[in-house]
Order: sequence, then C-alpha cells, then structure tokens
Amino acid sequence: MGEGVKSRLPAVTAMAHPNLALVKYWGQRDAARQLPLNASISVNLSGATTTTTVQFDTALEGDEFELNGVPPAPAALARVSAHLQRIRDLAGSTACARVRSRNSFPAGIGIASSAAGFAALTLAGTRAAGLALEARELSALARLGSGSACRSIPDGFAEWLVGSGEDSYAVQLAKPEHWNLQIVTVYFDPQPKAISSLEGHRAAPSSPFFEARLQQLGETLNTVRRAVLERDFGTLGMTVEREALSLHLIAMSSRVAEQPQLSGIYYWQPQTLALIHAVQRWRTEGLEVYFTLDAGPAVHLLVEAANRAALLEAVGGALGELGGQVLVSAPGMGARVVAGG
Amino acid sequence: MGEGVKSRLPAVTAMAHPNLALVKYWGQRDAARQLPLNASISVNLSGATTTTTVQFDTALEGDEFELNGVPPAPAALARVSAHLQRIRDLAGSTACARVRSRNSFPAGIGIASSAAGFAALTLAGTRAAGLALEARELSALARLGSGSACRSIPDGFAEWLVGSGEDSYAVQLAKPEHWNLQIVTVYFDPQPKAISSLEGHRAAPSSPFFEARLQQLGETLNTVRRAVLERDFGTLGMTVEREALSLHLIAMSSRVAEQPQLSGIYYWQPQTLALIHAVQRWRTEGLEVYFTLDAGPAVHLLVEAANRAALLEAVGGALGELGGQVLVSAPGMGARVVAGG
Repeated sequence: MGEGVKSRLPAVTAMAHPNLALVKYWGQRDAARQLPLNASISVNLSGATTTTTVQFDTALEGDEFELNGVPPAPAALARVSAHLQRIRDLAGSTACARVRSRNSFPAGIGIASSAAGFAALTLAGTRAAGLALEARELSALARLGSGSACRSIPDGFAEWLVGSGEDSYAVQLAKPEHWNLQIVTVYFDPQPKAISSLEGHRAAPSSPFFEARLQQLGETLNTVRRAVLERDFGTLGMTVEREALSLHLIAMSSRVAEQPQLSGIYYWQPQTLALIHAVQRWRTEGLEVYFTLDAGPAVHLLVEAANRAALLEAVGGALGELGGQVLVSAPGMGARVVAGG
Repeated sequence: MGEGVKSRLPAVTAMAHPNLALVKYWGQRDAARQLPLNASISVNLSGATTTTTVQFDTALEGDEFELNGVPPAPAALARVSAHLQRIRDLAGSTACARVRSRNSFPAGIGIASSAAGFAALTLAGTRAAGLALEARELSALARLGSGSACRSIPDGFAEWLVGSGEDSYAVQLAKPEHWNLQIVTVYFDPQPKAISSLEGHRAAPSSPFFEARLQQLGETLNTVRRAVLERDFGTLGMTVEREALSLHLIAMSSRVAEQPQLSGIYYWQPQTLALIHAVQRWRTEGLEVYFTLDAGPAVHLLVEAANRAALLEAVGGALGELGGQVLVSAPGMGARVVAGG
C-alpha cells in the first residue's frame, strides 16, 4: 500500500448480497476464529444488497464508519475496525480508512446483514489496500469478520467447508444461472432479538438434541448438495424445511447461561408460525412451496420460477391478516467491485 | 353380574378429571395394549370434569352412548363399546349398557377429554357391573381405553409406570392437598387437529431427536418427582416447561408417513407462541410462571397460589389481544363414584 508514497489511496466500492442458508451454520468450534462445527450450504439473495466503499487515508486519525448514512453504534465501528486491521496486517499498512456502507434492506428481520456487510467490506477493503486476493482467500478473510460472510463471496450457491483456519472458506457449488429458484422473503417489523445469533451459537451445545443434529448433518449436506446440482426441487425443499426446523428446535432447547429465566431461545414470532402453517396448507392444496428460517422471525419461501406468481398471490392474502413485507430474490452474484479498484 | 337374575342393574355415576402431564407420554411400545415407551407424571385438573353414568340392561340390543346430550360419532361409540366389552369380560356378563357422559369443558382444545372420559367410564362401568376393582386394577383397565386415562384414577399427582401389561398403571405420587399449585389453562377456539395424538405417538420414533429425548427422560422424571414431593416450584416449573417443549420439538421433527406434504406435526397455533413469549417476559419481570402444553394449542400456566391473582391479571391483558378463554384448576381428586354403586 506504499505508506508515505501517497497519503490517500483510491476509493473502491464493492457490492455483496446476504446469503440464505439451505443447510444452517449453528454452533462454533472456535468462536474467536469463527470456525463452525458443521459445513453449510447457501444461496445468495439477489433481491437484497449491501454496497460498501472503502478508502484508506493516512490523514485519518482513526477508522470512520457510516452505515446507511449515519454513524453506527460504537460496537459496530469496533467490529469494522478490527476487520480493517486484518486487511492492514495483510497489506503491511497502518493507514486508517473511511468506510461507507448502505443496505437495501432493514436490519434485524432475519436477513443476515452482517454476511453481506463483511463480504462487501472484505472485497472493497482489500482492493482499496492494493491487495488482489483469490476467491478462497477473500472468503476465509470475510469469515473472520462474520462467519457466514464467507458464503457471500462466491456467485450463486456456495458450500462453506468446515476447515481449521485458512482452509475454512466457502466454495461455489453452482452458478446463479444454474437454477432460477425464486426466494420470497416475508419479514415483519423488526423486534429486538432477546438473544443474539452469537449467543445462540454459544448456547447450542447445551441442547440435549445438539449431538443428534450434528450426526444427521452429513446426510443432510449430501442430500442438499445433490438436490442443488440436480435441480431436484422437491427433495431440496423438504430437506431444507426440516433442516431449518432443526436449527430452531436446537435453539428452543438451548440454555442461555446468562438468562436463566428463559427456558429456551425463541426466534419465531406468532406471524412466523402462521406462515409455517400456511406453507403446509398451500402444499396440501397443490402449491409446491417450502420455507426456511434463519435466526430471526423472517420466513424465506422457496418456489420454482413457474410458481412465483401463484405464491405471491397466496402470500398477499396471508399478509392481509399478518402484516409484513415481501422481498423477492433469485440466486444472486457473489461479492464484486462496482467502482474504483 | 348374575345374568337372568335381574335384567337391569342399578346405574352408577362416576366423576373424573382430565390430567395434565408434567412429564409427557409420547411414543408407544405397543399401540394395541396402550403401553408407553416412557413413564410419565401428571396432576389432575380440578377445574374440568367428566361425569359418566353407566347402566347395564339385558333388554338393550346394543350399547348406547350419549356425550354431552347427543349421540357421538360411530367411532366414539365403537371405542366406548370396546371398553364396555373389557368390563363385561371381567364380570362374566353379556348385558349391553347405556352410557351418558358429560364434559364441563370443550373437546379438541388441548385438554385430554379422553383421559377423564375413560377414567370415569372405567369406574362407573366396573361398579355398575358389580365389580370392585383395586385402584391399580382400575388404572390398568382405564389405560386400555385411552393410555393417559390411567393417570386420572389416583387422587392428585400420579406417575404412570411403564410396565408391560397388567403392571402398566399409575400410582399416586402425592395427594391433592400436598401442594396447592394453581393451573391456569388458556384455550382458544377449537381447530381441527391435522394430526391426531394417536398419529403423533406413532410418528414420534421417526424424529431424529427421539432417542435423545428418551435418554433424557430418566433424569427428567427423577427431577419432577422430587420437585413434586419437595414442593420445589422453581425446579418443577422450568423442568416441566422444557419437557413440554421437548414433546413439541419431537412432534415438529416427526414424519407422518400418510401425509408426506407435511414437514412435521405442528400443534402450536400463533396464540400458543404468543403465550410462550409472554411467559418468558412475565418471568423476566418477576412473575414466576411456567407453561406446559399437551398435544394441542392450549397453554397450561403453572403458578404458586400466592401468584394466582397476578397471573390472571397478566393473562387477562394478553387475552385482550389474543382472544381465548381461561380455566383455573388446583390439583384434583381421582375418579370417584358420585351416585349409585
């Protein structure tokens, strides 16, 4: 990055999508290094984007971070700054950076904004620092910012390999155009999470069912990987739906040491359950749709492209009673530079 | 019963309460003989009753059954008639019977009407047939009518021992007056169950978590038994709440062979989940209340007597939004004869 040669390097802007886990990441073998206990499979959500601009500038006295036009909470700046430090260490630099990031979607609704955010930050930051990392290096670095961010680096469908350090990154399973799946995300007014995903990961092994989940995941991964590659929608959908339930059953049977008055971790809201029931009913009526849920109340509905209009009509009817908003995605691109760099 | 001596024996009326499982019965080792895979612990609900009158009469050409003043569906008559046949076999009789039964509470809301019904029928029927069975014989016989009915025979708190036949019955753990627990049952408009409890039992072993549940139940039973005997409300409540969740997590991860379009069995309604959240919040705010759920949407709230008024006020506030009705119980008596016999 040539300290002293130039005080201000060119700004680089990168864009990334949040990704939706088809096989979930839940439980960490090493929290500090963001190493998971199990492999996971995801698809990028084309309908939601994070756009991040990074510029290193030796004139700055500290890192600056603006999210959606305003300075975020100090903890968010600290997390971004820690990630910039990883980039500086790689680049052999000491310059601070100005970071501006914007999400096209609200936070706290069950769409992983930190995944898109750290994927975009990793790409924009490394390029702005003059580095040109390979995809797997970018993915492993993004992982250190936020575990599942590693899955937002490749295009389309990705699998995050467990690994034990540098080899814990996501690889592409299939390109976006491989399968024009439609993902209709239904989300509700953000409610403060009683328990963060971080605490959920930490509490997971306290569930009496956690070992059984890990034992089953090998088969689940094989089934989902094959279903993606073969575009086998029925198998994909039912396996993904049961896998999402598995994560939530683990959460509901986990013990949170710091909050002994809670019997479990409840990410579902009543509207979540209403949609779970609606999906069973729609399928019984012949509309082949499946749900998945991340660690939040939003419900992601999967359909084949031919059924998108029918699903949107059914969802519209349900939302008349439930409230809520809708975001429509197809498999999205990975992180890419959109300006500068 | 002296066939030919007298054509019409005296009518006997018995009363029984539904019981609320503190440790649940879920999964059968022998469906035909109603033998469970695990022991269970319950308390009778004083606030709900079934009152049943049985009269054997050689003039009848078939068994007659009236429930809440009307003839029930043919399947219900067949089930009652099969139970009367067990009683006739014991009494060495062939006389048919007239059965009138009345519930003080609605069916299909998550309060086990069949438990109270078969407990009352067993007691009224055996006495009307001139038999005087011991408590454990009554309990084992009631079990053949509906598994959990065996727990409505003893007074107060009961434990159903697994057994392998005649030795599968419920014994009293503590009398009703041992502990003036209050049980506030919140129920909603009955909705047709997509999946009956019977199918739920059958599907349970298909859950990848079922073995883990069975393995944990020994400890759960010991904890709940001790908590009842020592009136340790905090331990009882949290253990019972997690145990109820365990049943529902098994149901949600079970596969129903006949309905492959369902990913699991969902007994919760959105209101159920709203109350699960409310209980966590109430506890955080200092009101010590715990929930349990049977295989239906009703929520049973446990409090110590001193907190009953505070709980009813909190529930009243929640029901303003959710709708629903409330039934208040203390530990109830077992099955007893109230007229004739």
